[in-house]
Amino acid sequence: MTAQPTGTTAEPILLREVADGVVTLTLNRPAARNALSMELMTLLTEELEDIGADPAIKVVVLAGAGPAFCAGHDLKEIRANPGQEIYQALFRQCSRLMLTITRLRQPVIARVHGIATAAGCQLVATCDLAIAADNTRFATPGVNIGLFCSTPMVALSRAVGRKHAMEMLLTGDMIGGGDAVMFGLVNQIVPEADLDATVLGLATQIASKSPLTLAIGKEAFYRQLEMTLDDAYAYASDVMTRNMLARDAEEGIDAFLAKRPPVWEGR
Amino acid sequence: MTAQPTGTTAEPILLREVADGVVTLTLNRPAARNALSMELMTLLTEELEDIGADPAIKVVVLAGAGPAFCAGHDLKEIRANPGQEIYQALFRQCSRLMLTITRLRQPVIARVHGIATAAGCQLVATCDLAIAADNTRFATPGVNIGLFCSTPMVALSRAVGRKHAMEMLLTGDMIGGGDAVMFGLVNQIVPEADLDATVLGLATQIASKSPLTLAIGKEAFYRQLEMTLDDAYAYASDVMTRNMLARDAEEGIDAFLAKRPPVWEGR
Amino acid sequence: MTAQPTGTTAEPILLREVADGVVTLTLNRPAARNALSMELMTLLTEELEDIGADPAIKVVVLAGAGPAFCAGHDLKEIRANPGQEIYQALFRQCSRLMLTITRLRQPVIARVHGIATAAGCQLVATCDLAIAADNTRFATPGVNIGLFCSTPMVALSRAVGRKHAMEMLLTGDMIGGGDAVMFGLVNQIVPEADLDATVLGLATQIASKSPLTLAIGKEAFYRQLEMTLDDAYAYASDVMTRNMLARDAEEGIDAFLAKRPPVWEGR
Repeated sequence: MTAQPTGTTAEPILLREVADGVVTLTLNRPAARNALSMELMTLLTEELEDIGADPAIKVVVLAGAGPAFCAGHDLKEIRANPGQEIYQALFRQCSRLMLTITRLRQPVIARVHGIATAAGCQLVATCDLAIAADNTRFATPGVNIGLFCSTPMVALSRAVGRKHAMEMLLTGDMIGGGDAVMFGLVNQIVPEADLDATVLGLATQIASKSPLTLAIGKEAFYRQLEMTLDDAYAYASDVMTRNMLARDAEEGIDAFLAKRPPVWEGR
Repeated sequence: MTAQPTGTTAEPILLREVADGVVTLTLNRPAARNALSMELMTLLTEELEDIGADPAIKVVVLAGAGPAFCAGHDLKEIRANPGQEIYQALFRQCSRLMLTITRLRQPVIARVHGIATAAGCQLVATCDLAIAADNTRFATPGVNIGLFCSTPMVALSRAVGRKHAMEMLLTGDMIGGGDAVMFGLVNQIVPEADLDATVLGLATQIASKSPLTLAIGKEAFYRQLEMTLDDAYAYASDVMTRNMLARDAEEGIDAFLAKRPPVWEGR
Repeated sequence: MTAQPTGTTAEPILLREVADGVVTLTLNRPAARNALSMELMTLLTEELEDIGADPAIKVVVLAGAGPAFCAGHDLKEIRANPGQEIYQALFRQCSRLMLTITRLRQPVIARVHGIATAAGCQLVATCDLAIAADNTRFATPGVNIGLFCSTPMVALSRAVGRKHAMEMLLTGDMIGGGDAVMFGLVNQIVPEADLDATVLGLATQIASKSPLTLAIGKEAFYRQLEMTLDDAYAYASDVMTRNMLARDAEEGIDAFLAKRPPVWEGR
């Protein structure tokens, strides 16, 4: 297991740890509750792009150091650098980060604890899967500071029902882990003491699958969601045909019929 | 607090009450369980359009007088005035009412009790938020009278999952408050004795936010839901940039950083 | 009540039973856990097309013989007949089957027990309604054999939230009946001893409605879901007008106002 700091400052603001095909990226600005400064968003996006090109990485875990998962944008930085162009660059970079997670060939699991607010809540909604400590609190509180959480709502409103999304967005109120599960924002809550083991178990399980199959499936998932039912079936039928013609599917089915473990070829 | 009857008949069929930026519109045809006659739908739509132009109104509450929130269309009126043109005018007016709620710049909260059926259930599904008494019953029972709840289903199927929506539509059965919360049709159920206080608390909380920010966010919410993920992020990034350039966002962030309450400029 | 075997082999692989306007189609390859061979998918599609043209049939129930509802595709058949053209024909036939269920004028209820995996889980997600025995297990386990459940996910991701769908697809894990209800994959779970009575009760209830009204409503449901809110309301308003002009709506409303049972004209 290696710990490999990433970033240009003396204190690394993004940590990277790899073990058995699972990479854990840890937001490391604990004093700022891991606020997504322009630098941190850029580093995280670049790191994800590198991971996408790395066949040794099967699964990504996204975590936060210190008491919070992520408290959203860096408001001090925003107010210190006012102006339309800077704001636009900031929100576009944030959107690029989220789209990079969605388009990454590897599955991304959010490991959530403490608080996940604004763009931090957006990260949770954006990751393919999310496991949270049961005492985590979630919110899209932008409305409290006059800045509606409009980019977080893109991810939030695609993860949870409209009434629940609207309540979070219009009130800015915190919700607890139980509601987050009921609404569909996270997959599961566990006692904080069990969080690492649960996330690791899930990541390890998924890392045991064919990386090619995971990549085919994840890409198809998000693409077909935006199609009509007719188009989605035509597209998914072609995806399955292509998947069947790959060696990993032949190997997987043969291994299943012979009741032996499969040996994947890689991507 | 003022009570201001609206309507052209001797007995006002729509009541309007304003207090502290919150307007409560009360359907007032209790003997007809607040059935949405052509007149009532037209009055309600016009009233909402006036409210949209009134900067003093921050939040709208929609309620019903008597034992029911709303039992849908006025079947006696429908059968007394048969004909394709009249039917078409009726359902178009109903759809215009629902779209007016969705496009209104102020958030709209349904205060639901008794029964909410057919177009009454559609009103609940259409409002941005809904709080219901725990003994409320909801249904889309048109199938029982040979008239499938096709316009209610537009709102219902966007608020709750497909299996639940289909069950309500195909069976016409009533569901209780617990299911309505689980399905995502309402945000919360409370004992009927607490309904007014809960709705007022929620409305007052939202009314304390920047009206400009609420209007920007609500419009963006429904618009981005109909876009692809790419387009939604491009659009929402522009919305946030525009929101940041408004004085209320600067004031909100500065107030937050200075730990003082913000002073909103208005719309 | 008649039992009418369908199929070309000595042992019928699809059973058909009609009683009181409700047809039950039973997948009958119990030794293969009702795996959807090319022959079975083709027979089932043809049977559904016949049913669509039969005015005596009001509701369809889809069931499985033996210990499982349906375990998905027939992997032995797939591996015995490799090749791009055969794979493509197989997945296209499967998609055609699912679209036939969605477009059938009669409502289709899945009667689910034992296991419902891969394309079997897709059948559950595709049917308009689903009632399951409480000990049923559901999964999209293709990822375990290198063949991501891409066509099942078209139906699954339209029935349940993204996080839940992704977890099922990426892990391949079984979920129980309680989760299936919570996620929205099935309408209800009941003890297996009550399954037939519950399904029959639901089917009989829906069969008592106007067949024309059911057909109008089901078609409109799936069509409007793929439209923008504006277009959906314009379309649904026209559908309701057309529905109102049919004799069954006039009869239904008149019967309701007169407090007598309606007499439907048929389709």
